[in-house]
Amino acid sequence: MKQEKISDAVVRRLPVYLRYLNELSLSGVQTVSSQDLGEKLNLNPAQIRKDLASFGEFGRKGVGYNAAYLIEKIRQILKLDKTLGVALVGTGNLGRALCNYNMYTKDNMKIVAVFDADASKTGTQINHLTVQPMHELKETVDRLGVTIGIITVPAWEAQNVADRFAAAGIKGILNFAPAVLKVPPGVRIHYADFTAELLSLAYYMDDDNRLSEGEVNV
Amino acid sequence: MKQEKISDAVVRRLPVYLRYLNELSLSGVQTVSSQDLGEKLNLNPAQIRKDLASFGEFGRKGVGYNAAYLIEKIRQILKLDKTLGVALVGTGNLGRALCNYNMYTKDNMKIVAVFDADASKTGTQINHLTVQPMHELKETVDRLGVTIGIITVPAWEAQNVADRFAAAGIKGILNFAPAVLKVPPGVRIHYADFTAELLSLAYYMDDDNRLSEGEVNV
Repeated sequence: MKQEKISDAVVRRLPVYLRYLNELSLSGVQTVSSQDLGEKLNLNPAQIRKDLASFGEFGRKGVGYNAAYLIEKIRQILKLDKTLGVALVGTGNLGRALCNYNMYTKDNMKIVAVFDADASKTGTQINHLTVQPMHELKETVDRLGVTIGIITVPAWEAQNVADRFAAAGIKGILNFAPAVLKVPPGVRIHYADFTAELLSLAYYMDDDNRLSEGEVNV
Repeated sequence: MKQEKISDAVVRRLPVYLRYLNELSLSGVQTVSSQDLGEKLNLNPAQIRKDLASFGEFGRKGVGYNAAYLIEKIRQILKLDKTLGVALVGTGNLGRALCNYNMYTKDNMKIVAVFDADASKTGTQINHLTVQPMHELKETVDRLGVTIGIITVPAWEAQNVADRFAAAGIKGILNFAPAVLKVPPGVRIHYADFTAELLSLAYYMDDDNRLSEGEVNV
């Protein structure tokens, strides 16, 4: 047992490795090199080797990584071997899309409760989940042991939902609303920041420096 | 005019700065320090100063950055001062949610065309856009000068849509499907990877090392 630090950046890259390893595994591939991983994921192979080496030596020079073993190891590190309950607030199109995805189930993250401040939504069904009113949040989080909350409300309501989550004892928040939120110490917030991905694409779209090495006149 | 390299990582952080600066600006704040930005965005202030310094010296020691000037500058760097046309394929809940968001308009990225392979969707309206069949993709991209494509179809259809986008002359793709896609040289793909953000939250949820500095036994 060796004590290692895992940086936030590595923790965020692990699910990306995991997804691709799962794809490889499903298509029957048994070993993969850091070179393959790097090419497919647009990452530096040296970075990948460094990331994975921090969990022990399970790659072999010239042979690569055993995909199944690496999947198992990453799932352990991310603690995906235990199921985590997720609550979602905001049942607009995005919230409904997330409830209908089944990826959570596969990865042992499961949306187990859904809430909406709009009373007309109360009692409606989304993929076998019944929409509950906000005043039931805390009791439900306690009863079902929910640890993670997803925010899919408009930007101006997001801080209020984050406050309600924190008060209910939720420890991790994934925020889809385009707003920077305050959370108390002990609560971790991640941003599902697809606007940032979209806007940063614009940078590469100019005919002069599109897809170049990033040279730009300033 | 000085020639500078802008790394992918910086290009991806700029929209995050921009969003928060816009929030500050709307609430009447005129100057902001790298310390404030860092605290609010969970980034290292030294990193922020370094990122912004690469575009010239516009922060003043002990005074901070002028928010309005920084917004203008970042918008120029990301080329958000020109409007870019966006086409979206896949009108499930997620696709409809994106069409209904108006953030694209504000940032001069605009969804101007929507497609779905399902013939029963053809002709239906989503936020003033008429859903078109896939065989009209190339002609529409040419006619409207679309440069960016968004993929919101299931994973198993995503590669096909990416191929169709590339063949139609689209230069940037934002993929929401949980699949790693191949694109030809000259096309750039970004992943809207909220599963990675969600799964990486799990790592921090264990009672022993939740929200610690990242110590873990391996």
